[in-house]
Amino acid sequence: MKIVLAQQNYHIGNFEKNTQKIIDAIQQAKKEKADLIVFSELCICGYPPRDFLEFEDFIEECYKAIDKIREHADTIGVIVGSPMRNPEKEGKDLFNAAWLLYEKEVKGFAHKTCLPTYDVFDEYRYFEPGYSWNTVEFKGKKIALTICEDIWNLGDNPLYRICPMDELIKQNPDLMINISASPFDYDHDDDRKEIIRRNVLKYKLPMFYCNAIGSQTEVVFDGGSLVLDAQGNIIKELKYFEEDFAVVEMFVDGRPLTANESNLHHKANTEQRSSNNIPFDKEMRVAKIKDAEKIIEYLTSENNIRQIHDALILGIRDYFGKMGFSKAILDAEQLSKNLGNRYDIIPIENIYDSFLSTLKPVFENLPFNVAEENIQSRTRGNLLMAIANKFGYILLNTSNKSELATGYGTLYGDMAGGLSVLGDVYKMQVYALAKYINHDREIIPENILIKEPSAELRPDQKDSDSLPAYDILDKVLYQYIEKRQGPKEIIAMGIDEQLVNRILKLVNTNEYKRNQFCPIIRVSCKAFGVGRRVPIVGKYLS
Amino acid sequence: MKIVLAQQNYHIGNFEKNTQKIIDAIQQAKKEKADLIVFSELCICGYPPRDFLEFEDFIEECYKAIDKIREHADTIGVIVGSPMRNPEKEGKDLFNAAWLLYEKEVKGFAHKTCLPTYDVFDEYRYFEPGYSWNTVEFKGKKIALTICEDIWNLGDNPLYRICPMDELIKQNPDLMINISASPFDYDHDDDRKEIIRRNVLKYKLPMFYCNAIGSQTEVVFDGGSLVLDAQGNIIKELKYFEEDFAVVEMFVDGRPLTANESNLHHKANTEQRSSNNIPFDKEMRVAKIKDAEKIIEYLTSENNIRQIHDALILGIRDYFGKMGFSKAILDAEQLSKNLGNRYDIIPIENIYDSFLSTLKPVFENLPFNVAEENIQSRTRGNLLMAIANKFGYILLNTSNKSELATGYGTLYGDMAGGLSVLGDVYKMQVYALAKYINHDREIIPENILIKEPSAELRPDQKDSDSLPAYDILDKVLYQYIEKRQGPKEIIAMGIDEQLVNRILKLVNTNEYKRNQFCPIIRVSCKAFGVGRRVPIVGKYLS
Repeated sequence: MKIVLAQQNYHIGNFEKNTQKIIDAIQQAKKEKADLIVFSELCICGYPPRDFLEFEDFIEECYKAIDKIREHADTIGVIVGSPMRNPEKEGKDLFNAAWLLYEKEVKGFAHKTCLPTYDVFDEYRYFEPGYSWNTVEFKGKKIALTICEDIWNLGDNPLYRICPMDELIKQNPDLMINISASPFDYDHDDDRKEIIRRNVLKYKLPMFYCNAIGSQTEVVFDGGSLVLDAQGNIIKELKYFEEDFAVVEMFVDGRPLTANESNLHHKANTEQRSSNNIPFDKEMRVAKIKDAEKIIEYLTSENNIRQIHDALILGIRDYFGKMGFSKAILDAEQLSKNLGNRYDIIPIENIYDSFLSTLKPVFENLPFNVAEENIQSRTRGNLLMAIANKFGYILLNTSNKSELATGYGTLYGDMAGGLSVLGDVYKMQVYALAKYINHDREIIPENILIKEPSAELRPDQKDSDSLPAYDILDKVLYQYIEKRQGPKEIIAMGIDEQLVNRILKLVNTNEYKRNQFCPIIRVSCKAFGVGRRVPIVGKYLS
Repeated sequence: MKIVLAQQNYHIGNFEKNTQKIIDAIQQAKKEKADLIVFSELCICGYPPRDFLEFEDFIEECYKAIDKIREHADTIGVIVGSPMRNPEKEGKDLFNAAWLLYEKEVKGFAHKTCLPTYDVFDEYRYFEPGYSWNTVEFKGKKIALTICEDIWNLGDNPLYRICPMDELIKQNPDLMINISASPFDYDHDDDRKEIIRRNVLKYKLPMFYCNAIGSQTEVVFDGGSLVLDAQGNIIKELKYFEEDFAVVEMFVDGRPLTANESNLHHKANTEQRSSNNIPFDKEMRVAKIKDAEKIIEYLTSENNIRQIHDALILGIRDYFGKMGFSKAILDAEQLSKNLGNRYDIIPIENIYDSFLSTLKPVFENLPFNVAEENIQSRTRGNLLMAIANKFGYILLNTSNKSELATGYGTLYGDMAGGLSVLGDVYKMQVYALAKYINHDREIIPENILIKEPSAELRPDQKDSDSLPAYDILDKVLYQYIEKRQGPKEIIAMGIDEQLVNRILKLVNTNEYKRNQFCPIIRVSCKAFGVGRRVPIVGKYLS
């Protein structure tokens, strides 16, 4: 039995394009004489569809697309993800479902049971959790069909009270298929392989795992779909940050293929993780590094920086492609020279002076303060936006996570822009990323790496006038934001109490600024934006 | 038995202030010789605490506050709302709980079962749903204790598969107590009374219902706590949009008080609603008006406008109070004169000219377009922000819901500001609100009501150059946003197909602008902001 994994990039709500993409892959799979083709979670409408799911019209479009695809699922089985209406009156109206289409009919389905509702995920907002479990039959084989988070509920301290595979295994399935929309973050590198391996070893079944790829505003799905044999060996690993298509011959003489019989086979490289005793349960959802002394080393490690680099490129490319932009604008003379890009030097003095003289009667003779600094920053922002508006460019925002965390930025000034590229990258990581990009030749000007950071809004201004050194700041921020540690734990790391309190207060009192910020490409396990929801009028650690 | 309802306004995460407020009410209740005092949902930390709940430190603060309050719950019973740790390893770590404190001990508790996870609510993000149900005993009476949404799961088409009161009633309770944080919206005026009445009639028990009041960034809680006798008559109704404190003698000679024995008694005024056959189930969560022809009449009705007015005042006042602002800035000469407020006239010409001359080399001789319009709007925004920054004011944003919906506004220009007052009020409602405010004398200048709306960014510009007439626009927007109707249903109302498609496309393609907008005081059942989450890179009806 030949099974295809189709790892594709969808556009949310673009039914015509998504459906055509799926049908194209089905045609290709037919040419390969495959028996079954597997797509990713909610591939029909794209993931995450968010509140579009609340429109009956949107659900009808999903059903129409399923009907179209069904016509092509004649001699080949097709597993797709799409919302399914709940036939019961009780509970939410929809399930997050996997559909098995074959002989132009719906031959089986599975409802997602474990609905991620944390960080960037809101699935219980829309879906009723599955509450009955049945394998689906295909060509004489029983498939344990699950959806993404359904296979992540392992460990002693699980997030959900039900583990769907524990139910499905009672029906003696022959293989597991999981369709996913599992996003990238550098804090959880390799977790996916490990969780799949643990499922394989627990249930002693081969696993076909199909993940989505592509960036959806802020969330980056990185692909890396997998096939494991029943012994936990990887038979096939699909590309990361790219679309991919793989055919796997699963059964040889009626028995499952073993790694020795496949072309690609290596043990899931998870020994290191396992030896760290990293639990695959609730704690999985926060950052994992335990050694506080090594945080900066960890954050700036080449492995993490390389993946951040790839994720950001996909994030920018998909935002452009899906929003219809082709050109960006930002502010950086030497970098433009290095890249051979057009640049303009636009002095802000005249505009700044006209602001000051216009405001003179109102400001009276009050001393220079943040108001004048912000005028400069906003003048820059306005000039960039004016050019973007005139020529149809997008203004890329360049604030980093350390600045956003501490509110070290001007609303409508340097915080302006349509997409934040570095908003989930700490300052120390920005340096490491620049060095990584400069690996072969100087692209990022060396001067940016060595000069003292400054907002350049008054003479001799330095970031360090207002903020602690970035290596200390980033360590505290990471403990607080990614690891959700409180002041007690952070102080216990040996960092000055007053400093810790000051930093946490900066983070919490500047929520109002981040609330007006553009989408941030998410690369960590806790980015500002849709995945981090804290009250603005709150009074906590502030 | 004397029971007190304490309807209070909390500050999220401000444990010191909230705890003191609760203790003060306990002292007052003791003076009144009350047996039991009831506070609202999550009163200890304030509602909604959002991701603060993910910090162990925050939960510890909740427990410390409970310990403090327990010391005052000696001769009086105290029911408060606060997170409770889940002793089981399986499932989320917290419950949303009601605690009964008495004789300085925790005498009982209830876990919230129906966790609202829609619109502005994210409760399943944090809490495990309750899965066992027991009445709590107090002074020989059995209390069916529930939390907010727990009593809303009625009707033929309920949102949740479990109805906690159906479980609790099996233990023959003597009365029901529900602690709530139930927000205001004008679309659901009177629903609360009706749902409480239906519970009372279904279970044949008196109900003590304590709601929160106060505005938390965007969500306005309006109070209106209630006591109903077992026949469905209102014995006590607390104030709306204000704190309140009420003592009710519940039992007379050992039997429950009847309405005839209370001072205040009138039937819950719900006949009209009931006769409309409005379902109390899933459909409850969308706007209810069925007669599409009467939408504008409904939106601008005096009953709705009066409540919107009161909610906005509370929303502004609490945002100021909780964020520490005392003065605001906005742009309106005649209004300032009418109110006797300071105003300044600041010409933008010089600044605008300096922008144009600075940009001339880049813009070359391209024709005037939206870029120049936006420069004007952003110059105004910058001037307002500069004054706000210089003097520590907050810039109040004046965009209305019709403008935000269609993207008729300039990012960083007229869309700037710290709080949006009218962002959930359609243009037709803005007019009605102005007339309501002008009830006794002209406060809002008459000219604003009669002149043709204009952004005033080029000569003779009118909103109607770009947008359909507001009475048609608002009708379409309300059908789409509040009632979640698709294009088919809206066109079926008799509105031109092209116009409907154009409006829906405007709404969907401008999500990127609203994503950077400030918090909006929510008065409808579907406000832009945290309660409406749609993809930015989506391609749906666009």
